Amino acid sequence: MIRSWRAATPPETVERRDSVIALVREGQAALVAAFEALDPAHPFAVREWDRPGGGGGSARVLDGGEVFERGGVNVSVVLGDDLPEEVRRQRELPRGLDFFATGISMVLHPRNPHVPAFHANYRYFEAGKMDDWWFGGGADLTPAYPVEADVRHFHGTLKAFCDRHDIANHAAWKSWCDQYFTVRHRNEMRGVGGIFYDDLHLEQEGGWEAAHALMADGIRTLHDAYLPIVERRRQDPWTERERWWQEIRRGRYAEFNLCYDRGTRFGLQTNGDIEAVLMSLPPMTRWETDAVPEAGTPEAAALRYYQPGDWA
Amino acid sequence: MIRSWRAATPPETVERRDSVIALVREGQAALVAAFEALDPAHPFAVREWDRPGGGGGSARVLDGGEVFERGGVNVSVVLGDDLPEEVRRQRELPRGLDFFATGISMVLHPRNPHVPAFHANYRYFEAGKMDDWWFGGGADLTPAYPVEADVRHFHGTLKAFCDRHDIANHAAWKSWCDQYFTVRHRNEMRGVGGIFYDDLHLEQEGGWEAAHALMADGIRTLHDAYLPIVERRRQDPWTERERWWQEIRRGRYAEFNLCYDRGTRFGLQTNGDIEAVLMSLPPMTRWETDAVPEAGTPEAAALRYYQPGDWA
Repeated sequence: MIRSWRAATPPETVERRDSVIALVREGQAALVAAFEALDPAHPFAVREWDRPGGGGGSARVLDGGEVFERGGVNVSVVLGDDLPEEVRRQRELPRGLDFFATGISMVLHPRNPHVPAFHANYRYFEAGKMDDWWFGGGADLTPAYPVEADVRHFHGTLKAFCDRHDIANHAAWKSWCDQYFTVRHRNEMRGVGGIFYDDLHLEQEGGWEAAHALMADGIRTLHDAYLPIVERRRQDPWTERERWWQEIRRGRYAEFNLCYDRGTRFGLQTNGDIEAVLMSLPPMTRWETDAVPEAGTPEAAALRYYQPGDWA
Repeated sequence: MIRSWRAATPPETVERRDSVIALVREGQAALVAAFEALDPAHPFAVREWDRPGGGGGSARVLDGGEVFERGGVNVSVVLGDDLPEEVRRQRELPRGLDFFATGISMVLHPRNPHVPAFHANYRYFEAGKMDDWWFGGGADLTPAYPVEADVRHFHGTLKAFCDRHDIANHAAWKSWCDQYFTVRHRNEMRGVGGIFYDDLHLEQEGGWEAAHALMADGIRTLHDAYLPIVERRRQDPWTERERWWQEIRRGRYAEFNLCYDRGTRFGLQTNGDIEAVLMSLPPMTRWETDAVPEAGTPEAAALRYYQPGDWA
């Protein structure tokens, strides 16, 4: 998946790209190993794919696990001579720019309604022969039953990560995440947020190296941000009603990803492997009219968390 | 829901609008009565909603029925002074046109995997103070297990309906439907198609009256097109595997509706009642990596039907 572009690329660009590709591949191996350690009986399958236009990917996917009912950790390299519409529109770039993109993306949908779903994505783009480059990333948590201590742990870990980097801006990236992961037609966040950034670019203080170092640390931080929460909640007993609420919340997840998620649109527009692009979609999902919980229930308490809050 | 616009509207326009509103209301009452007759223990709930910008709707919705696991028959009136982007883009119209739209839309998701899901929509638009008007409509069938006789019955009934109207073009409307209801990122139709038209407008031979008469007949025809299939299949026994395949196909249904469906986007853009707009989304739905049936199975046989075929 990563050979074809090398010959025609200047050595210093090759070196940079390789160093990001190494990050995402190492990140994938470490995270999959950590997820598998929670449920050794259900290893992630390997799914390698080539992209006709250039590049490809390696997805590690799981269906029917005990801890994770469905999930995946995908790395990909995508390149071409016409930056996809989704990215052009975001960055107000013209048609016909050659581009290179690589990143790691993961989504985990736990079986137990008390274990939050998790998403993270770290990515690197070049457009127009290195005339422009940028890094983006972030992670967010989607509990059906938010527990304040867990939400604080997750946000606190991400804030501590940001605080380790001069070029990070936790307050701005937290707000960006709240805004980005909003199911607009319901005026409700998909979950409890986290961080989201897309603005580490060419003119960045510290340059490419600082943005790259931040990405490396960001991927490592995912272990500490998420795994302790899984450990704490995975043995919690759960009821039919809690399962029902989890399935309803997964419906919101699917609505967000199919209606609004840029990564999903980018994947569909670049003809990525469809199973890798849509690995984010939940397993058992439910739509039902007026699934609005009654006041005083744990489900009504959950709803309050799906609005921006100060959790770091 | 239908009073506020009358005072400021010329009488002949009021008369036309009222006559379409009567069609969709009568159609709703008759179809809901027919669906309820199949399962008297589970009547459709009534959901009336006002639209802040003007208009509103009346949805009849069902969750947890025996024959229909989820479904709805919605009528709505939407008006305003800036035609939504979704419609402007389709028809290459400028911003700032006042508009009026009314229609009937229905989606039925049966519980039994052998009973096909069903969708139909008939609609009427005006833009720019009657400088422009158009009618659109259509119906399509989404079986998890297509039975050739049922598919032929459905298409044959729609063709006979088209043949009763000089201004209808069955061949073109059938192709339009095949194309429209394609899940583009999978290069696969949502179901087995039907008819779709959006081109009965101002310059139409026979004028407004002929287009209106076609709409009336189109709504009546839905009974004959769909109900006999439900009757034939509703007692069929079904297995866990068949349920699994139905849930997988519902995932495709949700992908289409959230990614591509114009009616869904129009509903979200015009701030329609969210439960009425999303009543099309299936109840229990499943995503799973590589849910590709093995050759020789009934599920593999089903896949062949999700490409354009000659069934009328």
